[in-house]
Amino acid sequence: MSPPTAIDTQPAAEDIYVPTIIDRLSVNGVPSRRLKTAALPKSLAPATSSDVFKGSQYGKPKARRWDHLISEESKQRMPSSLKGAARYLKQPGLISLGGGLPSSEYFPIEKIDVKVPRPPHFSEQETKETGVTMSIGKHDIAEGKSLYDLHVALNYGQATGSAQLLRFVTEHTEIVHNPPYSDWQSVLTTGSTSALDIALRLFFVRGDIMLTEEYAFSSTVEAARPLGVRACGIKMDDQGLVPAEMDRILSTWNPAKWNGSPKPKVLYTVPSGQNPTGATQSIERRRELYKVCQKHDIYILEDEPYYFLQMSPWKGADASPQIPPSSHEEFLSSLVPSYLSLDIDGRVMRLDSFSKVIAPGSRCGWVTASEQIIERFIRHQEYSTQNPSGISQIILYKLLDETWGHGGYLDWLIDLRMHYTTRRDILLAACDQHIPRQVTTWTAPAAGMFHWFTIHTSSHPSHKTSSPKTLLEIEEEIFLAGIARGVLTSRGSWFRAEGSNNLKRIVAPRAAAHGTQAESPEIDPEHDDRIYFRATFAAASGQDIEKAIARFGEALRSTFGITEANGHAI
Amino acid sequence: MSPPTAIDTQPAAEDIYVPTIIDRLSVNGVPSRRLKTAALPKSLAPATSSDVFKGSQYGKPKARRWDHLISEESKQRMPSSLKGAARYLKQPGLISLGGGLPSSEYFPIEKIDVKVPRPPHFSEQETKETGVTMSIGKHDIAEGKSLYDLHVALNYGQATGSAQLLRFVTEHTEIVHNPPYSDWQSVLTTGSTSALDIALRLFFVRGDIMLTEEYAFSSTVEAARPLGVRACGIKMDDQGLVPAEMDRILSTWNPAKWNGSPKPKVLYTVPSGQNPTGATQSIERRRELYKVCQKHDIYILEDEPYYFLQMSPWKGADASPQIPPSSHEEFLSSLVPSYLSLDIDGRVMRLDSFSKVIAPGSRCGWVTASEQIIERFIRHQEYSTQNPSGISQIILYKLLDETWGHGGYLDWLIDLRMHYTTRRDILLAACDQHIPRQVTTWTAPAAGMFHWFTIHTSSHPSHKTSSPKTLLEIEEEIFLAGIARGVLTSRGSWFRAEGSNNLKRIVAPRAAAHGTQAESPEIDPEHDDRIYFRATFAAASGQDIEKAIARFGEALRSTFGITEANGHAI
Repeated sequence: MSPPTAIDTQPAAEDIYVPTIIDRLSVNGVPSRRLKTAALPKSLAPATSSDVFKGSQYGKPKARRWDHLISEESKQRMPSSLKGAARYLKQPGLISLGGGLPSSEYFPIEKIDVKVPRPPHFSEQETKETGVTMSIGKHDIAEGKSLYDLHVALNYGQATGSAQLLRFVTEHTEIVHNPPYSDWQSVLTTGSTSALDIALRLFFVRGDIMLTEEYAFSSTVEAARPLGVRACGIKMDDQGLVPAEMDRILSTWNPAKWNGSPKPKVLYTVPSGQNPTGATQSIERRRELYKVCQKHDIYILEDEPYYFLQMSPWKGADASPQIPPSSHEEFLSSLVPSYLSLDIDGRVMRLDSFSKVIAPGSRCGWVTASEQIIERFIRHQEYSTQNPSGISQIILYKLLDETWGHGGYLDWLIDLRMHYTTRRDILLAACDQHIPRQVTTWTAPAAGMFHWFTIHTSSHPSHKTSSPKTLLEIEEEIFLAGIARGVLTSRGSWFRAEGSNNLKRIVAPRAAAHGTQAESPEIDPEHDDRIYFRATFAAASGQDIEKAIARFGEALRSTFGITEANGHAI
Repeated sequence: MSPPTAIDTQPAAEDIYVPTIIDRLSVNGVPSRRLKTAALPKSLAPATSSDVFKGSQYGKPKARRWDHLISEESKQRMPSSLKGAARYLKQPGLISLGGGLPSSEYFPIEKIDVKVPRPPHFSEQETKETGVTMSIGKHDIAEGKSLYDLHVALNYGQATGSAQLLRFVTEHTEIVHNPPYSDWQSVLTTGSTSALDIALRLFFVRGDIMLTEEYAFSSTVEAARPLGVRACGIKMDDQGLVPAEMDRILSTWNPAKWNGSPKPKVLYTVPSGQNPTGATQSIERRRELYKVCQKHDIYILEDEPYYFLQMSPWKGADASPQIPPSSHEEFLSSLVPSYLSLDIDGRVMRLDSFSKVIAPGSRCGWVTASEQIIERFIRHQEYSTQNPSGISQIILYKLLDETWGHGGYLDWLIDLRMHYTTRRDILLAACDQHIPRQVTTWTAPAAGMFHWFTIHTSSHPSHKTSSPKTLLEIEEEIFLAGIARGVLTSRGSWFRAEGSNNLKRIVAPRAAAHGTQAESPEIDPEHDDRIYFRATFAAASGQDIEKAIARFGEALRSTFGITEANGHAI
């Protein structure tokens, strides 16, 4: 628990400091950068760090210290005593009978060939025709064929992940985010679910409260709960979390209302394409929220799996087709800046993942934070996940670094977000056509994989009877009506950060008259008659998305007894 | 914390119950078994369980319940609310807009070809000449080419691991261990370090004590410490942990001597080729220890990475060459039975790993325990590691199941242990030649990767002066003398379960006269003059092992001022 003085000693909110950028890395700058940074080690399980791959951080301040946030468990972690002996390995001629690393002659994998797309021909069909085969041998390093091979990748590694892939993600992070403090580092993870588990144990103790969106990624809330960490959900609007609401909650924090829990110290947020609401925070929103975090000394866990799935705005079904950005710079500057890129204090841990942009089965991602936090994070990985699969790491390295390079990877991301934009547009066009606007509102998602329906329930037929249904009952009715018609959606209540118990009691106020809301789509937010559904456009085919939305529209109309389609008679 | 009654209600120790085995699986029985068990699912992220791949467990008792051992954190884990919706997916024609599983058309991997040995031609050279290339496509399932493909492996999976690989390890576990209770299950893990982290959080709370060997795998002890769990080290002999010692400690447990910690409830042990001592518990030793665990209701974490590296006995440098077993049955019956195979109560969680027998970089293993414990374990994985890399999983499946089969895998293991035996024999022959027996004793390892030197320090030259060195100082002197001569070993004190603080004070009693011990290799164990060194024969080449042992011998001679080699003048 942080002593109260830790909060009191923070300065008042001030404008975000914009550092003088003297060595901002670009895609084209990577080759000359690599001439200046450390060579990749050729040995087994070599120690490494982002620091040896970063450019000059001259002029940037150092991150603040977070000693008061680090849990007892994390504080007590010590470097592995066995790994300490590795420093003697540099001695020429030394023979090690120390570490129990198996000899590579007993790894029964001689060679791995992987067929991947050749940029910009990314589709499955094009890959079949024009794809590149990356060849990965067991002794490529010794044979001078590559800087990474199976002899290294199939053996034990360090808890930072391999130097080869770490260099790539460090450069990528610098190209995309260029954190404005000097002592940032990245480290590979076995995916963001694992990274979050580690972060929760690093920053929280039993009885703590985690700030998050009112509707939040349920796995995060459910991961925190058994650790004795409850979520405090902050009200949201169509840009996600509302900073003024968070400020109000923190300024008036009363432990007595939260079973004695002290004022929260950590915010978990998904700023782009938030799961489940699909909301994306604008740059202004992010600046405002960062200031509130400075004011109350809040540390930020920025979970950003969907960052590169930011889309061009939805302009209706008849709009002209989207035009891809003309350069990597145009693409990168079209993305809303991350918290990491605004983080002058070093108060952000950013969680990146290959799951949504390469493949979930890689079980590989990375986190970026200040040296102090990353060091604790590595200590945790040493005694748990160790590092991502070496097979995943070497395939990602061969693909992203040796085959595509940073430019090819950005081309892939540009292509990918075009596909997701097309999928979103199919879903939104189907919504315009099939979803009854009498009871439903939505905001077009600007990023990610999810669309969020707001259902206004006060015109539900049961409200005309003496036993009106509760919000949770109506939600269930719609959900099951969807299933009966052949569409599976996700119920909003599953995502309520503080749980859905209160929805069991709430009955929405009765609408003045059936059909009134059709003429007044501006519904009073104080009505509290809203329930929500999440639909993903990531998985099903375009045709199936359209069919599924039509079915969901039918489910809504049958639940509410609506006989017109979208305000028009059917 | 378990209530005291939980211990009191245990029955007294009794003979191990040997069940009537009615459906013991053999390698040759696998094809007909598979006709009787569930077909492999073809869908994305399907739910699965060992239960659907096991044979009849008729006549076996159910495991005991371990509610009193399960930690608060583990008890509070709930199944993922999102994953609960998966049950609707069985409905024909249903379109899911539910889970955010990316479409496989956006996985930039079209095909993976892997070259592996064709049994029994396992060497690197033979693999180059006669190896098999396993081809893994994206849509092999749809195209009828395989039961597993990249479309499934590269997407999200369940926290059990994939059905394909889980079936293989379930069958393998049944063939090798055939647990004598009915409701055992296996589940894939991201390696035993991660599995142990999960097990520690499942069974321990802050203030608990973990029973383990006096000299123990340091990573386990160091993983437990930040969780507030201290180790209690049990005295060992050349067969490892001494059951009577554990019984004595538990029978006379006094919380006051352990900062108020209650009587321990869990034992962590490495029964075969223990790290660091190389000790292997005999079957009699295991039966005796299991009885002590029954008596005191102790749960057993059986960490067995070296199980298949059990070796034929060392018969000296001039013995005739080892003969491999003539059949799989002969091989399996030559192995000391595991605790899992003796576990009539379901009080064992066995940790298996592919790290030492396939490759550490796979970051893949599995655990086996009773259904109750496995269910809690899966709940933990859902919110942390999720599952091993899909790329690792599909390569292991293709190798072990489709290409080698259970028989080919056992052939590989037989071949592997022959290689480790050869390596051990090189090391032992070198010890006979180079290590001064005046101050050193050892037992030939019967399994694993490690050799353990006992150094008797009472003849150290400083003991003839007025300021004799402490045990820790002598250990450091030998270690550094080794480094100076070009050999890295591991210091025994790094592995002391209860830490090495007391070694800082202990000065061994002075030997009667220099050289006395050369004539009396039976050294009084109460002398307390012993320090230890670990040397691995896993990593260096045979030539280097010999060179390194010669250097270590020199380090010992120089430290102790010995001018003869191994008792003979040099």
